[in-house]
Amino acid sequence: MLRTHTCGELRISDVNKEVSLSGWVQRVRNKGGLIWVDLRDRYGLTQLIFEEDSSQKELLQKAASLGREFVVLAHGLVIERASKNDKMPTGDIEIKVSQLEILNPSKVPPFIIEDETDGGEELRMKYRYLDLRRNVIREKLQLRHRMMQETRKYMDGENFIEVETPVLIKSTPEGARDFVVPSRVNPGEFYALPQSPQTFKQLLMVSGFDRYFQIVKCFRDEDLRADRQPEFTQIDCEMAFVTQEDILNTFEGLVKHLFNTVKKVELEEVKKMTYADAMKFYGNDKPDLRFDMKFAELNGLTQGKGFGIFDQAEIILGICAKGAGEYTRKQLDELTDWVKRPQIGAKGLVYVKCNADGTFKSTVDKFYSNEDLKAWADLMGAQPGDLLLVLSGDEKSTRKQMSELRLKMGEELGLRDRNIFKPLWVVDFPLLEWDEETQRYHAMHHPFTSPKKEDIPLLETNPGEVRANAYDLVINGVEIGGGSIRIHDRATQQLMFKHLGFTDEEAQKQFGFLMEAFEYGAPPHGGIAFGFDRLCAIFGGSDSIRDYIAFPKNNSGRDVMIDTPSTIADEQLKELSIQVNIQNKS
Amino acid sequence: MLRTHTCGELRISDVNKEVSLSGWVQRVRNKGGLIWVDLRDRYGLTQLIFEEDSSQKELLQKAASLGREFVVLAHGLVIERASKNDKMPTGDIEIKVSQLEILNPSKVPPFIIEDETDGGEELRMKYRYLDLRRNVIREKLQLRHRMMQETRKYMDGENFIEVETPVLIKSTPEGARDFVVPSRVNPGEFYALPQSPQTFKQLLMVSGFDRYFQIVKCFRDEDLRADRQPEFTQIDCEMAFVTQEDILNTFEGLVKHLFNTVKKVELEEVKKMTYADAMKFYGNDKPDLRFDMKFAELNGLTQGKGFGIFDQAEIILGICAKGAGEYTRKQLDELTDWVKRPQIGAKGLVYVKCNADGTFKSTVDKFYSNEDLKAWADLMGAQPGDLLLVLSGDEKSTRKQMSELRLKMGEELGLRDRNIFKPLWVVDFPLLEWDEETQRYHAMHHPFTSPKKEDIPLLETNPGEVRANAYDLVINGVEIGGGSIRIHDRATQQLMFKHLGFTDEEAQKQFGFLMEAFEYGAPPHGGIAFGFDRLCAIFGGSDSIRDYIAFPKNNSGRDVMIDTPSTIADEQLKELSIQVNIQNKS
Repeated sequence: MLRTHTCGELRISDVNKEVSLSGWVQRVRNKGGLIWVDLRDRYGLTQLIFEEDSSQKELLQKAASLGREFVVLAHGLVIERASKNDKMPTGDIEIKVSQLEILNPSKVPPFIIEDETDGGEELRMKYRYLDLRRNVIREKLQLRHRMMQETRKYMDGENFIEVETPVLIKSTPEGARDFVVPSRVNPGEFYALPQSPQTFKQLLMVSGFDRYFQIVKCFRDEDLRADRQPEFTQIDCEMAFVTQEDILNTFEGLVKHLFNTVKKVELEEVKKMTYADAMKFYGNDKPDLRFDMKFAELNGLTQGKGFGIFDQAEIILGICAKGAGEYTRKQLDELTDWVKRPQIGAKGLVYVKCNADGTFKSTVDKFYSNEDLKAWADLMGAQPGDLLLVLSGDEKSTRKQMSELRLKMGEELGLRDRNIFKPLWVVDFPLLEWDEETQRYHAMHHPFTSPKKEDIPLLETNPGEVRANAYDLVINGVEIGGGSIRIHDRATQQLMFKHLGFTDEEAQKQFGFLMEAFEYGAPPHGGIAFGFDRLCAIFGGSDSIRDYIAFPKNNSGRDVMIDTPSTIADEQLKELSIQVNIQNKS
Repeated sequence: MLRTHTCGELRISDVNKEVSLSGWVQRVRNKGGLIWVDLRDRYGLTQLIFEEDSSQKELLQKAASLGREFVVLAHGLVIERASKNDKMPTGDIEIKVSQLEILNPSKVPPFIIEDETDGGEELRMKYRYLDLRRNVIREKLQLRHRMMQETRKYMDGENFIEVETPVLIKSTPEGARDFVVPSRVNPGEFYALPQSPQTFKQLLMVSGFDRYFQIVKCFRDEDLRADRQPEFTQIDCEMAFVTQEDILNTFEGLVKHLFNTVKKVELEEVKKMTYADAMKFYGNDKPDLRFDMKFAELNGLTQGKGFGIFDQAEIILGICAKGAGEYTRKQLDELTDWVKRPQIGAKGLVYVKCNADGTFKSTVDKFYSNEDLKAWADLMGAQPGDLLLVLSGDEKSTRKQMSELRLKMGEELGLRDRNIFKPLWVVDFPLLEWDEETQRYHAMHHPFTSPKKEDIPLLETNPGEVRANAYDLVINGVEIGGGSIRIHDRATQQLMFKHLGFTDEEAQKQFGFLMEAFEYGAPPHGGIAFGFDRLCAIFGGSDSIRDYIAFPKNNSGRDVMIDTPSTIADEQLKELSIQVNIQNKS
């Protein structure tokens, strides 16, 4: 028996018990012949005390030899502390140690293992097992654990069956790049790792599983950005015999359950907004609704007054930043510089200050009268003390720039509180999007998403206008899940592949099994998938998913702790019937 | 809304309700102007009835057009059945249909979708999505779902944290063959898929996670036997600050919880047996304890009586088959043929019938008196009516042969009841086993298993005798889990690698990160992993794991439904800096 209690467990009511504790040395203090040791484990901290008396010389010496992160087993008596610490749950007691065993010593760690650490990112990645000892990191993974368990509890309660779909599947050129796995038994052939279990979950619906879910690893061999990982986790779900409404209700229920049980937050009803409205009012298909600041279209009020920039613009958009009328000239110049940065790309910024006395002060006073500006202000519902910000240009870029500016103003005005959660269903996404590079339409969601029945004729005439039965769940401006009602008949699926530029042969070769399955009684079905890493980050109040993954990879897809990827033996390559062939990229 | 109720839900109390049901057509009967349709979904069967009346000609025609596996939506009135069927939960009612919509027709399925099917294995694998429609298969996956949820409930209740470890890890030559994944970003380098999360779970213990578990996919590129899959699922667990006893208790708790909640079986206390005893008494490290039939060693009683075969044998082993004394000559000849089959490999079989009158009849009467045979019978605790079966030869082969014979006799005598569960901990496994092929010792479990402290000196003198702190959980002769107390200090781990034939350099290159982690305060720890597919099969009363996997691969590691592995595009190979190089195996 290596312990009778954990380091987070003992209370004043345990005084006079003989106990054994095991854990890590957090801190050693030495004063006046006494030694105190803070002993740490996952459950908390407990103070050990070593007192000098004639019989215990050796014990005291041993205690004095302890260094940070040594692992020890201490046996002793629970006593009441002279000076209590009401900041820690065990702060009323300490252990008067009578026996001490050093279970394992420790070298001096490469960085300090406390909430605030002096370790840089690379160092902490290399010694991830030490970084994980820090409470702030471990708590993130405990949150993740809680999220997983509560997700399963809810899904099980809703009669969903968790089914494990295969990891060794088939490579398909649609979507992102696949990771592939050479087959030894079938030389020259490869498996691929799933980008999602999409086709399998649809087959499970064809099988009559009715309600499926899985918390599952997925893989994408994409160029990594700061916040992407080559392997990531999804909550993957599918339901048969449902309408879109049934799905939205079911998963609104899941998200509410998670907020309720994990964060003790009663989430409000999830609003719905069409993709068209989201783009119109927020320039963004994942609007942050913690604050309003909707876009106003000012073309009618601004054009034809001699201001060439507006006159030549496709669109003039304004937002009203409540209470920002007091912004200084310096702040406004900074804002102007900010929108002109290449990442944002605006040509310039027009602002209008709504003065306390009802007058207006703008950068375009030369072209617009106070009355003109009042009309702008009225349209945007501005009050004295507010600031109007106006961008103009071609529609697509201007909406995007304004979306960025809106988020920045929300940030600056403190409107993006991490403890407030505003969920939103964005619905009626376009089915297809035009890709300039390949000069063809791509599926916005994936090729299995169904078009709205009434829009199907548009496929021939105006494919970009076809709306899909597709939806995203957005919280605070972050997309945490998305899904659709699927195509469930061969003819529509073939039509879809045709419009995505597949030949019949290609479609058959890659997805023939699915289209054939649709011919044996496929029920109407639809589903959703949540990005679990991101969902955890949102719950934890973080922007980055990395700390919510136990052993993440760096931006080159490398695990620097175990040093992978790495070369493999020639013998292995030979068995797999492959060889390395590095070509200089031209 | 595509249904108001499922097909398993309606009862007599629902009579007179207007309902909508969706599902698959199981059967259509047509008699005297009436049509009955059995409508099926995951939840059950409900009978639909279509009655001819003037206004409903079309409806009746539509019903008559239905074929097996059509998907329909039926709306109608719940009525009491004239002739009730008390074999089905919905057997008291039927739906008098007023509207029928065919949601999707079906081609005639390639095999019958009922519990008993006419489909062969290959056909059912190709149309796995149809095979999964059969209740008997779907129920196996529902059992699996239940097992997963209950496992998590127990583990969460015991304070284990579920942590997802990476799938893209590092290839190591120890153990089975790795599946590898070429890295595009790091040309010429590869990830490997995990054979188990062993090193990661140990690092989590170094991190202070204290109690970890995961239900996780693992991968082994081995030549496939009938009941192995390239990807399989483990319940993977690790605990810090524990003794072997703590681990056995915790996981005995898990197994009891599963039996209790999933099978409503109160499992008896799990017995313990040393590996040495298991081999001595059952010739097998996973004895089936549903029946006794222990081995008796007969050397002392049989040698030196002139029977050359026994005299020259290293060992003479007997078992007593209770009540098999009535075996006919034909049955005994068949048994003799059976032990001589190449798969068993015995040279011959000696038997002794214990007659009702207290005399004995054996195949070796020439060499042994009735008194001699009585001594054998006494040693084996045989009674009149029993049958003694004796094999001889070199010790290793004979124990193995006798183990097979014992299992066969258990089967023949009906002693291997699938509804009886006899769990056993086998403990004190050898640390190392000699491999003839490579002429060196291999880790019997894996290189991280700790030797028993008192046996460490034997590492230098007699490595094969060193016992490990390793244990297996066996149920009914099937190993369902195994684990060990791990090495947690660098020196012992290095010693272990040395004895496994690693150079210091090799050990450092492959497992340097783990040994370094041991230097920063690694706690004593140990764990266990359960083969989840097999555990489900045992609970379901099956020998084969394949039906407990939603989309299994065949014996060539191929998914014949989606047709993978398959060739990939040259462009993909180029991006991955590899090329295919198939060499004829010489």
